[in-house]
Amino acid sequence: MKDKQNVFKEENLNAFMGLTKPHWIEARETLQKLLDKSNPTIQNDKDLRERAFVKQSEAQMHVPADIGDYTDFYSSIHHATNVGIMFRGKDNALLDNWKYLPVGYHGRSSSIVISGTPITRPLGQTLPVEGAAPHFGPCRLMDFELEMAAFVGGPPTKLGERVTAQEAGDRIFGFVLMNDWSARDIQKWEYIPLGPFTAKNLGTTISPWIVTIEALRPFVTDNFPQEPEPFPYLKHDDKFNFDIKLEVDITPEKTPVATTVCRSNYRYMYWTVKQQLAQQTVTGCNLRPGDLLGSGTISGETSDSFGSMLELAWKGTKPIRLLNGEERKFIQDGDTVTLRGYCENEGVKIGFGKCEGKLLPAVPLE
Amino acid sequence: MKDKQNVFKEENLNAFMGLTKPHWIEARETLQKLLDKSNPTIQNDKDLRERAFVKQSEAQMHVPADIGDYTDFYSSIHHATNVGIMFRGKDNALLDNWKYLPVGYHGRSSSIVISGTPITRPLGQTLPVEGAAPHFGPCRLMDFELEMAAFVGGPPTKLGERVTAQEAGDRIFGFVLMNDWSARDIQKWEYIPLGPFTAKNLGTTISPWIVTIEALRPFVTDNFPQEPEPFPYLKHDDKFNFDIKLEVDITPEKTPVATTVCRSNYRYMYWTVKQQLAQQTVTGCNLRPGDLLGSGTISGETSDSFGSMLELAWKGTKPIRLLNGEERKFIQDGDTVTLRGYCENEGVKIGFGKCEGKLLPAVPLE
Repeated sequence: MKDKQNVFKEENLNAFMGLTKPHWIEARETLQKLLDKSNPTIQNDKDLRERAFVKQSEAQMHVPADIGDYTDFYSSIHHATNVGIMFRGKDNALLDNWKYLPVGYHGRSSSIVISGTPITRPLGQTLPVEGAAPHFGPCRLMDFELEMAAFVGGPPTKLGERVTAQEAGDRIFGFVLMNDWSARDIQKWEYIPLGPFTAKNLGTTISPWIVTIEALRPFVTDNFPQEPEPFPYLKHDDKFNFDIKLEVDITPEKTPVATTVCRSNYRYMYWTVKQQLAQQTVTGCNLRPGDLLGSGTISGETSDSFGSMLELAWKGTKPIRLLNGEERKFIQDGDTVTLRGYCENEGVKIGFGKCEGKLLPAVPLE
Repeated sequence: MKDKQNVFKEENLNAFMGLTKPHWIEARETLQKLLDKSNPTIQNDKDLRERAFVKQSEAQMHVPADIGDYTDFYSSIHHATNVGIMFRGKDNALLDNWKYLPVGYHGRSSSIVISGTPITRPLGQTLPVEGAAPHFGPCRLMDFELEMAAFVGGPPTKLGERVTAQEAGDRIFGFVLMNDWSARDIQKWEYIPLGPFTAKNLGTTISPWIVTIEALRPFVTDNFPQEPEPFPYLKHDDKFNFDIKLEVDITPEKTPVATTVCRSNYRYMYWTVKQQLAQQTVTGCNLRPGDLLGSGTISGETSDSFGSMLELAWKGTKPIRLLNGEERKFIQDGDTVTLRGYCENEGVKIGFGKCEGKLLPAVPLE
């Protein structure tokens, strides 16, 4: 792709993402060759070495793409079931549509920030007492959501064009970690009937390094069994699920000891990202390279693998004990929340880096 | 603003919108002076005249800004009440939160298209029989939604920054007409619990010319009376409602006679656009110039002023008779839907142009 070198001079990855999968693979293989210890090209060229590498300690990370549109899905069956049990009881936990389509909603692009950006506890309306008047003030139930998000690649599609799950593989560029910060009490009051709004646009943190699908290939695992069988547009033959270990730490401000409160795994996803992309476009919605598809909170089967404080502390009824002796039902001011992700097998390890943010106290209205 | 002239050389209006209200007013006054019949500057300069004007018949219209984020509100009380009566009965028509905050949700930016762009009837999942399995196929309840949308202006805000309703006036650049095409049957099946998704991202049509707030000043009218009194962040002292007459025509393909099926008015809005902007940012969501805020469907009090087929034909129970003798419950293939808007008083008339789209038949899955 000699005529496409300009994509690497851009401020973000959109132009590179907007090429095709063979281009992405070529770029990856070229880098692998150049970085191989038997290859002298960079190693023996001091000048090139200095131009090619930036010290991690001197690098300022940025959101890697201009995100045109961001969608958040709700595709972990354990998470959806947990939330359903809490709010509707065990018999009605999963809503009727959940196993027929990947439920999702459009999110806010502007408030997606890079790991390290502080998040401010929001003010908003809540309904502390059912049937009474709502209250305005700081959110009291601030939560994280352990998610991963996929960047969409490939040339833009046209309005009216569909991408089926079978075709979607060439359009998933790669993954980052994502913390979909959530103001639970604000969400509960505002979300009927049009969905979450201001409870989610106070900040969404992603990790800076995109791990491409090619890099994840060695960690492909079985898709989650689906019953009923999906409609044809949602079906694909190949495995497109990944064994990605995920962890969440909470580090309080005063006694800064990190406690790992959650150990989950991307493989708990019921719907694959191919199916999510097919759902995104089924009515003809057009894609642009750099679009972001959030997985939804990724919870495993066991209570230590739940991907949010709402579930971990079960709506505040089972507080989590931190290593410094404190308890948490939700996130407190000064807490740093750190998501980590990695793949590991037979000695190969790939890391996603971290996705981190500190919660700052609310700023009152003047 | 001699040092800001570069904003007019951009491909879209974002840079101009990103300046401040005094800049917008200066640009408007300069144009008004230059176009005044007593001003010879352009009139007497053939070369300048040729450079300054483009024939309407030769102009290709475009979406006027790069829309970073698009939010759609639900702020007409008559619309929300009508929909509520249809789906929940008269006693529970308005949900508890509706009069406390401007309910809204994030929409899809990529699928916002300019007037004249055809819209394809989407395929999707629907639930024709309650309790049975869903069905996949063409949408059967295709609808328009008569809306207006405001472009956000001013410099970008920071994450964590709020704009109260009182401060929001300097951040509303101007209005366009908007048809929020809606696949009602798809929406009904998919929207619980996270809101409308693919039922709305199949295409959203806007008119190309933005009418600025300054131009609308002579048509300011009383705000809609609000009870209960809004929270302080949602309060503003001034009138910020506008008398904008709105009409919707349906023109069938075979006997192309236009029937005006709806005559409504922007002044029916319960929540002002200042209040919508305050709600958008209350939890700290950052704004970028070019963001778009949809009003939600604007319905008046009488049945001929309802802003959607869902309401006009009352869920299909009262079909609308067109001038060519046909009936409509929803939009049919080949129908062109045209929104028009204008302000008029004491001889002054300001038009919004038109917001038009033709519905093309569904394209089956291959």
